[in-house]
Amino acid sequence: MIQKLIQKIEKTHAPVCVGLDPMLGYIPEHLKEAAFAEHGETLEGAAEAVWQFNKAIVDAVYDLIPAVKPQIAMYEQFGLPGLSVFRRTVDYCHEKDLVVIGDVKRGDIGSTSAAYAAGHLGKVQVGQKEYAAFDEDFATVNPYLGTDGVKPFLDVCREEKKGIFVLVKTSNPSSGEFQDRIADGRPLYEWVGEKVAEWAESCMGDSYSYVGAVVGATYPQMGKALRSLMPKSYILVPGYGAQGGKGADLVHFFNEDGLGAVVNSSRGIIAAYKQEQYEKFGGDHFADASRAAVCDMIADIGGALERAK
Amino acid sequence: MIQKLIQKIEKTHAPVCVGLDPMLGYIPEHLKEAAFAEHGETLEGAAEAVWQFNKAIVDAVYDLIPAVKPQIAMYEQFGLPGLSVFRRTVDYCHEKDLVVIGDVKRGDIGSTSAAYAAGHLGKVQVGQKEYAAFDEDFATVNPYLGTDGVKPFLDVCREEKKGIFVLVKTSNPSSGEFQDRIADGRPLYEWVGEKVAEWAESCMGDSYSYVGAVVGATYPQMGKALRSLMPKSYILVPGYGAQGGKGADLVHFFNEDGLGAVVNSSRGIIAAYKQEQYEKFGGDHFADASRAAVCDMIADIGGALERAK
Repeated sequence: MIQKLIQKIEKTHAPVCVGLDPMLGYIPEHLKEAAFAEHGETLEGAAEAVWQFNKAIVDAVYDLIPAVKPQIAMYEQFGLPGLSVFRRTVDYCHEKDLVVIGDVKRGDIGSTSAAYAAGHLGKVQVGQKEYAAFDEDFATVNPYLGTDGVKPFLDVCREEKKGIFVLVKTSNPSSGEFQDRIADGRPLYEWVGEKVAEWAESCMGDSYSYVGAVVGATYPQMGKALRSLMPKSYILVPGYGAQGGKGADLVHFFNEDGLGAVVNSSRGIIAAYKQEQYEKFGGDHFADASRAAVCDMIADIGGALERAK
Repeated sequence: MIQKLIQKIEKTHAPVCVGLDPMLGYIPEHLKEAAFAEHGETLEGAAEAVWQFNKAIVDAVYDLIPAVKPQIAMYEQFGLPGLSVFRRTVDYCHEKDLVVIGDVKRGDIGSTSAAYAAGHLGKVQVGQKEYAAFDEDFATVNPYLGTDGVKPFLDVCREEKKGIFVLVKTSNPSSGEFQDRIADGRPLYEWVGEKVAEWAESCMGDSYSYVGAVVGATYPQMGKALRSLMPKSYILVPGYGAQGGKGADLVHFFNEDGLGAVVNSSRGIIAAYKQEQYEKFGGDHFADASRAAVCDMIADIGGALERAK
């Protein structure tokens, strides 16, 4: 699946990923009204509004981008109807030939991590049959529990040719509280990065590994150090746009081959119509606003990479 | 809810928690056969087997214990039918007046962490209505992202009078890879423990905080240090039994008031009938084996605490 991600990035000239994190507050009133008219103000109603919102955005941008990243928390909060729409979104994005990165940030130990890996990337065995519960192509994984928590994902990645992105340095302001602690002369995130490089070596695709890393756009200098520490890992870069990261900050996350990073934007794309720059589209044309925002993001990152050559 | 947990521990004289982590391999054949006969070898069939297994165990032990800890990964791997049984298990345990600790190990940032907190401990707003998606009493939380990831849980805990257990030092063999790194003269888990103490102060019940910590039974000396570092936090102690922790190791996790810790056993209780010690019960009486194992666990821990006085 890392091969497919790279091929799609090369084809679209767009190392970007759209985060499908549909908070109800982002969804235009007319979609919510229609969903609530049909299902009432229920979890099913909320889930239906999320589904219609996602579908319109995916329809508007799928030809421009290689990948989407649904954030499962935004679905999980609506219980079973929400998680049903998570799965429906995964399937719909697959129909549109998009790579799906499940932003699930799971992480546990032993058989528990194996259950998460089976549920999100692999298959679960029931008697003689096998089922893929959520069927994403990649999943984000939390490294706090060490190799015990990651290894079961590696096993599934090898079997299914799928991948993970391990949290290394996250984009949020307080990420430094633990991740930046200096241990034996190096920040913790570098120790995590070193382990990622080790896990990555054990799980190689052609030129890149099935094991990638999450490094926030908001910390470009750290991104530079981590880029060289994890040469075979794709970096999933959150924090572009609404969180403050800009195209020029991102050049450090790429390798000299022009590959090696995929930049995510969520709110900046899916709620573009709420920003001054795209408000002319209005709520009725929210998906067109998202398409315009994707085009601008691709141009911003492409321009920065061009200038850095 | 921390008050309720303490009251129930005092009433049962049992600072223990039964982990409802129902792998299919733990479930006796006759339950699986009945479930598959009704639903086929499907996700629904697996979920039905899990439900019947959980219900029998809860019925057999609920009067002995204060709390249960369902591990959501074991349900999530079976997709929506699995998560439906997770919720059904939460509700059934509430009917039996048990405190429910959702072992979900969630952790993200800002609005995403808020969505997890709403989904597991709080309520999500849909129009004018509110819904509790999973409705646990406590949730386990991963601290790797720092305060940004934890604060949204604290807000919900204050509002709902519910609680969290933050991963500090986990019970698995490789937990030391990152958690034991010495930073500024102290292991990382102590820095996390210090933050837990700070979060705990901001979220107090009567004598203990809504904010607890996870510290593995397999590291008793670290437990001792963390006990004094987080005086107001209940410690959820995994790793007893199958993972190697013994009653005598656990005394360090308790405060002088005899409170402050709740010890979890999962496999050691729910799959007791598969152990030599309880095999006389057989698969047909698996729940009686679980009851016997709970009694032995309570006696082991009670005896150790008595000898330590």
